Amino acid sequence: MCGIVGYVGSDNACDFLIGGLRRLEYRGYDSAGVAIYGGSTFHITRSVGRIDALAMQLGAVPPNGTLGLGHTRWATHGPATIENAHPHLGGDGEIVLVHNGVIENFQTLKDELIQKGYHFVSATDSEVIAHLVAESLKNTPETVGQPNLRYLNAVQGAISRLRGTYGLAIAFRDHPNFMIAARFGSPLVLGVGKGEYFVASDASPLVGRTDRIVYLADHQIAVLTPEGFSVLHRDQGKVRVNIRQLETDSSEATREGFEHYMLKEIYEQPESIRNAMRGRLDEENATAVFGGLNLTPQQSRMVERIILTGCGTSWHSGLVGEYLIEDLARIPVSVEYASELRYRNPPIENNTLVFGITQSGETADTLAALRETKRKGHRTLAICNVVGSSIAQAADGGVYLYAGPEIGVASTKAFTSQCCVLAMLGLYFGRLRHLSFERGKQIIEELRQLPNAIQQTLGCNEQVRDVAQKYQNASTVLYLGRQFNFPTALEGALKLKEISYIHAEGYPAAEMKHGPIALVDKETPSVFIIPRGTTYTKVMANMEEVKARGGPVIALANEDDPQVQAVADDVIHVPQVPEFLQPIVNVVPLQLLAYHIALLRGCDVDKPRNLAKSVTVE
Amino acid sequence: MCGIVGYVGSDNACDFLIGGLRRLEYRGYDSAGVAIYGGSTFHITRSVGRIDALAMQLGAVPPNGTLGLGHTRWATHGPATIENAHPHLGGDGEIVLVHNGVIENFQTLKDELIQKGYHFVSATDSEVIAHLVAESLKNTPETVGQPNLRYLNAVQGAISRLRGTYGLAIAFRDHPNFMIAARFGSPLVLGVGKGEYFVASDASPLVGRTDRIVYLADHQIAVLTPEGFSVLHRDQGKVRVNIRQLETDSSEATREGFEHYMLKEIYEQPESIRNAMRGRLDEENATAVFGGLNLTPQQSRMVERIILTGCGTSWHSGLVGEYLIEDLARIPVSVEYASELRYRNPPIENNTLVFGITQSGETADTLAALRETKRKGHRTLAICNVVGSSIAQAADGGVYLYAGPEIGVASTKAFTSQCCVLAMLGLYFGRLRHLSFERGKQIIEELRQLPNAIQQTLGCNEQVRDVAQKYQNASTVLYLGRQFNFPTALEGALKLKEISYIHAEGYPAAEMKHGPIALVDKETPSVFIIPRGTTYTKVMANMEEVKARGGPVIALANEDDPQVQAVADDVIHVPQVPEFLQPIVNVVPLQLLAYHIALLRGCDVDKPRNLAKSVTVE
Repeated sequence: MCGIVGYVGSDNACDFLIGGLRRLEYRGYDSAGVAIYGGSTFHITRSVGRIDALAMQLGAVPPNGTLGLGHTRWATHGPATIENAHPHLGGDGEIVLVHNGVIENFQTLKDELIQKGYHFVSATDSEVIAHLVAESLKNTPETVGQPNLRYLNAVQGAISRLRGTYGLAIAFRDHPNFMIAARFGSPLVLGVGKGEYFVASDASPLVGRTDRIVYLADHQIAVLTPEGFSVLHRDQGKVRVNIRQLETDSSEATREGFEHYMLKEIYEQPESIRNAMRGRLDEENATAVFGGLNLTPQQSRMVERIILTGCGTSWHSGLVGEYLIEDLARIPVSVEYASELRYRNPPIENNTLVFGITQSGETADTLAALRETKRKGHRTLAICNVVGSSIAQAADGGVYLYAGPEIGVASTKAFTSQCCVLAMLGLYFGRLRHLSFERGKQIIEELRQLPNAIQQTLGCNEQVRDVAQKYQNASTVLYLGRQFNFPTALEGALKLKEISYIHAEGYPAAEMKHGPIALVDKETPSVFIIPRGTTYTKVMANMEEVKARGGPVIALANEDDPQVQAVADDVIHVPQVPEFLQPIVNVVPLQLLAYHIALLRGCDVDKPRNLAKSVTVE
Repeated sequence: MCGIVGYVGSDNACDFLIGGLRRLEYRGYDSAGVAIYGGSTFHITRSVGRIDALAMQLGAVPPNGTLGLGHTRWATHGPATIENAHPHLGGDGEIVLVHNGVIENFQTLKDELIQKGYHFVSATDSEVIAHLVAESLKNTPETVGQPNLRYLNAVQGAISRLRGTYGLAIAFRDHPNFMIAARFGSPLVLGVGKGEYFVASDASPLVGRTDRIVYLADHQIAVLTPEGFSVLHRDQGKVRVNIRQLETDSSEATREGFEHYMLKEIYEQPESIRNAMRGRLDEENATAVFGGLNLTPQQSRMVERIILTGCGTSWHSGLVGEYLIEDLARIPVSVEYASELRYRNPPIENNTLVFGITQSGETADTLAALRETKRKGHRTLAICNVVGSSIAQAADGGVYLYAGPEIGVASTKAFTSQCCVLAMLGLYFGRLRHLSFERGKQIIEELRQLPNAIQQTLGCNEQVRDVAQKYQNASTVLYLGRQFNFPTALEGALKLKEISYIHAEGYPAAEMKHGPIALVDKETPSVFIIPRGTTYTKVMANMEEVKARGGPVIALANEDDPQVQAVADDVIHVPQVPEFLQPIVNVVPLQLLAYHIALLRGCDVDKPRNLAKSVTVE
């Protein structure tokens, strides 16, 4: 989702801005732009499409200047056009800003500003903020000897009128070498250099420029000049900030010979699963250990219900978690869409533990849901990948995935790592309750075999490619599985939907007869996930029902399954693992299937249309 | 799903069979057939497609006989062909049978019977039973003076080998005037006439022939002759049966001038909602009363959690119920797919009440889920439409919808009645807890206004037809809503999917950005449900995001909403009602939208392809 970069210092701003925007590309965007202060005014360059197009437009000799802003836009209000791309100007060009978030009352404010004579050139909610700051500045008196203070007051006045969310970086034509950043609901990070300061949506643009960072919190405003920076809170005045050390292995963020990040990340799964388990399996006590839960064994034992919340793929891993934790630990689990939970005000019993599941740790709805349940006095924990992210900081504790940066917009390794963490949580809570030492040992052994099973599964790649070839022109695909494999069906369908734009939908296999089977005809393939296990014969019967109506069937089955072979048109083989771990193995061929179909259809796998990597607006 | 009729008596069997099969048409089928005993052998007539085709084939002078079987087949194993249509013959034609259900071990049995020299002409699991009975008969010795007993023993021997579900009616070439019916998992009803007896999948074929009926229970076998009938239980021997009075207003089961049952049932909703509320709103105590809950106020107060389970549309009304009951009564609610619940063995806390929601009362998975939770000692209740149905009988109590027969395969009035019952349950449980007398009175008043609001909503029909015209060629449609209207989005999408075969999918509006928005382009309309209420501005922002990507937007909004009007391409107006009742109103235009689009695409609205009305196999 929208990305922000800003620079104030003595170097050429443009280099950092363009490099930084490239690092933010993975977030998803459909236009981009930069503003560089050129001594008397701002040079603004904007383009629709990729950063490459923007760089081309800037040409061999880009504008020179030591203060600048940049932005990648994921359209919310108004289509992806040059006019709607950021940076936006306010007043007569005395304000320039970039904005991430959604302003809900923009229409009211816009009407008011038009009345006052402001002229709008875009359909965005962001341009409203630019003019609002200009108007506020007009009404803010000079503060003798403290020119910065006037600008700060003007910005504070303007943002006090905003309803919605924002991450903002703002510069001023008539007050150079000075920048204001403000956050409410959309993440912002400051980079602390020597005589230079940076603003960015996340830490990735800062790698190589500084390793000292500050996460802005909601309602905080930062003032940056080449001489230093300070942070203020809306209500509390100046705050002491905590400068953190940025730990990023920047080598991980390259494709390393793979054609796409997504493919690389699919192939990393044996390793990322190993990283998720490293140091967390305790043979001696036949349980799992987590450093960051911040729960005593007594507190953990008191847990009577678990709520798992997240969005998209993380919601799916929550569903896997429901089956896993209920099975291993016999604690009732509810899974909630974060966007629904935050507004639903559900009755939550005492001794309920709430887990927010998120790759980025910045998902706006998950953050809000976690904050709301925490405010009500429930204990909240995060399962997330990005260290130091907003959700990691907001929760009472949590578990990191240690999966390394995930760049492909369609989540792959984060999903399997989340499922693996949830399996270990099942073991942990189970061993506090009814799981025996022996069973605990056995589960640890089964978990240890998992990376090898995934490695083995990756061997199906060629076969999956052939299947992809055959079905690449489908316009509708059903994914069907039961029990542990029902969420896998949802996740497989989501992958295909995200990157190939084919309308795929997942269902518990038995639900098919209550509607979706009406879609089945010779052109509509169904993917059945049918490993051996408790519901094998039932799913088999559903497969027969689809075949009876002429629907092509792709089956994901264990090796040596002549019964499936006899019914299905195409069979992809997956190794047999214990039933509760089967979803982690089974999703891998489905990731590959989506990948190959998208490739064959000429889609941009790593940057699918309309999508953003981390959804930082609600 | 498959329908069975059988006749033994002194009249011409064929008239009853064909008439009965027509009454069972609504269950969904794709081929049909009858067998009539003609003095020395069975005349079998079968056809693919509608009963009309079968009647045509029987011609002006259908076979004469006083014993016969008939069947409508919804294909499970093998496509809809003449060979696979029932009745099936066993042995050398000495057995004839019709079967409803799924035999899971049919392949093993088939292999065994082929080894023994039996010749199969169909791909069905049912033919296996026919040969199995023949084989069993061969091995069953004569019982002197009790010829019926030998046949009974043979059938019992055969069905003891079946794994799966069945409703069976079986007749024998060499033992005329004799029929056996057996049930496990698939519903069967006996009709008790004077010198004539009937078998049917449900009571509808019996209307006008007899009003005395017997519901067979699982593991029961009935023996019928023109002289009388008896019922045995597999383990308990002969059982005393309870003959019930059939109460059906047969006039309701006609289209009454409407072009389709579905349209008639949509228009019946003001009345069916009134029927659901009749006698259940207690002004004096400002609460709802239910005759059949079989719970004392003390027991009701003890309820700490509610599980709502069902399939398809009933699962959607469960989701509405979750929002309703949690909002009104502050009791935590979980909604479970019945097919998943029955095998999942979830940890369920004490003082949990389980509701099975079903129109027909025969849905196989819902019945099994209810039985399984009841067996574990939880109290189970039914919310269903068909009086005396299997689920109504299996539950500890329940609430009838009194919506009248629902014949259209796509459920409409049953859904709104279910939601209405759930709202009244919310009121009832709320008034046992924290809802004040005043608030209770207010909710009653709001409920009383509901039929009028639905009546008013029906006025949008013309407008909906215009919208349908515009979007009839879409191949993918998204339905988006939040909170109370998220399940409405699912239900709206399901209707379109069921009867127009367009791939429609529902989502909580905010989830869109986590994947589905990738599907949005100029060809992909989105239906936004956006009445005024708590998440109005949020859904508005999602609408803008879809518009920004060129996606056409159909909005369901309250009257006089210029803001929605300004953004959406087409607006359908619904009256504003209290937020918790809005889903019951909002679903009506979505039912009509599906109806009109299906009609424009030339689909068979009342009998959509592949679908069955009540899903009596799992």
